[in-house]
Amino acid sequence: MPKPGFNPLVANLVAPPIPVVQAWARAYDGAYGRLIDLSQAVPGYPPHPDLLRWLAEAAGSPAFAGYGAIEGDQALRGAYADHVTSTYGAPLSSANIHLTAGCNQAFVVAAMTVAGRGDAVLMTNPGYFNHEATLQMLGIEPRYVDCRAEDGFVPRVDDVAQALDGVKALALVSPNNPTGAVYPPALLEDIFVLCRERGVWLILDETYRDFIATGAGRPHGLFEIAGWEENLIQLYSFSKSFCIPGHRLGAVTAGNCVVSAIAGVMDNLQICAPRAPQQAVAKGLAALAGWREENRLEIERRAAAMRGAFAAIPGWELQAIGAYFAFVRHPVEGAGSAQVAERLARELGLVTLPGSAFGKGLDRYLRVAFANVEVEQIGEVAGRLSLME
Amino acid sequence: MPKPGFNPLVANLVAPPIPVVQAWARAYDGAYGRLIDLSQAVPGYPPHPDLLRWLAEAAGSPAFAGYGAIEGDQALRGAYADHVTSTYGAPLSSANIHLTAGCNQAFVVAAMTVAGRGDAVLMTNPGYFNHEATLQMLGIEPRYVDCRAEDGFVPRVDDVAQALDGVKALALVSPNNPTGAVYPPALLEDIFVLCRERGVWLILDETYRDFIATGAGRPHGLFEIAGWEENLIQLYSFSKSFCIPGHRLGAVTAGNCVVSAIAGVMDNLQICAPRAPQQAVAKGLAALAGWREENRLEIERRAAAMRGAFAAIPGWELQAIGAYFAFVRHPVEGAGSAQVAERLARELGLVTLPGSAFGKGLDRYLRVAFANVEVEQIGEVAGRLSLME
Repeated sequence: MPKPGFNPLVANLVAPPIPVVQAWARAYDGAYGRLIDLSQAVPGYPPHPDLLRWLAEAAGSPAFAGYGAIEGDQALRGAYADHVTSTYGAPLSSANIHLTAGCNQAFVVAAMTVAGRGDAVLMTNPGYFNHEATLQMLGIEPRYVDCRAEDGFVPRVDDVAQALDGVKALALVSPNNPTGAVYPPALLEDIFVLCRERGVWLILDETYRDFIATGAGRPHGLFEIAGWEENLIQLYSFSKSFCIPGHRLGAVTAGNCVVSAIAGVMDNLQICAPRAPQQAVAKGLAALAGWREENRLEIERRAAAMRGAFAAIPGWELQAIGAYFAFVRHPVEGAGSAQVAERLARELGLVTLPGSAFGKGLDRYLRVAFANVEVEQIGEVAGRLSLME
Repeated sequence: MPKPGFNPLVANLVAPPIPVVQAWARAYDGAYGRLIDLSQAVPGYPPHPDLLRWLAEAAGSPAFAGYGAIEGDQALRGAYADHVTSTYGAPLSSANIHLTAGCNQAFVVAAMTVAGRGDAVLMTNPGYFNHEATLQMLGIEPRYVDCRAEDGFVPRVDDVAQALDGVKALALVSPNNPTGAVYPPALLEDIFVLCRERGVWLILDETYRDFIATGAGRPHGLFEIAGWEENLIQLYSFSKSFCIPGHRLGAVTAGNCVVSAIAGVMDNLQICAPRAPQQAVAKGLAALAGWREENRLEIERRAAAMRGAFAAIPGWELQAIGAYFAFVRHPVEGAGSAQVAERLARELGLVTLPGSAFGKGLDRYLRVAFANVEVEQIGEVAGRLSLME
């Protein structure tokens, strides 16, 4: 009997990298102390007790057991619209908000809404592997603009300009995953102007927005540019700031027409985002602002400890750091980043992601999700890294 | 400046029908008593108090706030594998289970895994509009096998055989949405044999499986056919049986290779299904079996009341009924089903879905989600319907 096959676009996807490195980690025998997981961007501290209480209340209520609006419940659409209005200093309303089941889904619906098979979307190299895989599985050609180590992995406007022809959208992540690079507001504004001139969508993923360093000011002024709705789709995740990735909640901020088009996709994909976390986060956005700010400061301290620790390990270089991630250059000549990451995980109990998961020419790099570990542990991280040869 | 457009496959989607009819319903002035919503398949009773308690416990626990496994938490994969093993009398293991955020998402990942743009997938007419829209937005051509009113909208094997050439998959829903038709096990087995001979996937959505009438026996024996893993992808929703559509939880049952391929898609789409409902449902599957059986009997009583009520309304015909839905023929000559449904909603406070939402040639039909209303209300439904001319 003929055996039916898979969609080649899906069959050819590379294995998701996180489970691969977690499998390596399970082989670690504890010789150097407890396993330190720097692979996935998961906050190292629990959600706020009030948020857990609100999550429990909403999940236990029959009121939120039923279907909700496709675009999301008004409670959170409104609260989040107020939040982004104050974050960006630009007037946004709940009609600009579409809630999703996490920010990966926000990217999927944004990409599907503006591009289809045969179209091209420009992203960065290094870039976030799930964005690349999403484009590949949808038959959208990913193209790349190289970011350079000497620029701290911030893209150059000229490089973007040269790569923008013939693409439907430019997908950027700031603060960046994997490098941690925070794109300056002026750069984002220059790139957005370019996108507008060329009739290209800018899909801007700001999952790590809440961890920008003290004094950096607002992330950008794009929402103040007249007509921004025609070209901008902005993405966010509640997973990191509220420590609730297991509840799956993200948001798209965009023009009304984009929100309507996305609702058409979301109805098929998911009907609506899970409702209990919508209710809880609607309460937490304003009430837990102080707690989120403390966490931001704590992660800033961890970044400072990382800088100090790396300055002291021979051969290792911290090539970019910000928000949640550091992108580090390892000292091992002639070994691929996957080999180095595998040895670190199996032998030394340090779980990182290899640079090769994030693009081409990155075999000398590892992504370190440093926000996951406490300041006191960072010396231990450095100590174990210094054992690699 | 050039304005970038949308993906035409998304821009051309028809508006999701549920919000359209709900907008009509808001115009109802209450003249005939309270609004009766027969539009969306939402159980008319609340979740079991124990389930609400387990949902609250899991949602309030930091243990389930973090990311989970892409395929789903072992607690529910294992418990659900046991459940399907006993439901179908066939040995299934947790490796056969992939959890999803609802059954629409299960269909999306199943369809993407086996088909891509330019491929064709066969479905029924009438059929579930979100399946059709999912295929359309993915650039997969939906083809249709007509089901006939005189057959109670159960497809004929010969009709399927004639339409099967050149399709990657056949998507069936049993018990059916919109008609309620329950496909007999022998028919499903004949169709599956046909699919195997022709190298076609069968995607079988059994969202309403738990509401099959007393004495119907197991839904089918497909999981006992040697090599079923090569052609079958079975879908299920926890939303209906546990009354938790707002929590978003569904499941795929398939061969290991399919589960692995789907994990590649899910990682990009959603990372993992929301975890709190996974934990709660894992507890509820066995513990609430009696409660689910009581609900099944209650919905059977509602179906009987529907049959009785329709026998007494001149002009209206109940053309198929089962599980959650009835597919009824309205008496209004020369009016489209959307006009009839709009008048019913606006003027009489009865919210149904027009047949035209489910396919071609269906303008004489309405879908009535009768499971939403209590037996005592069904007479009232009939009374209002009899006012339509």
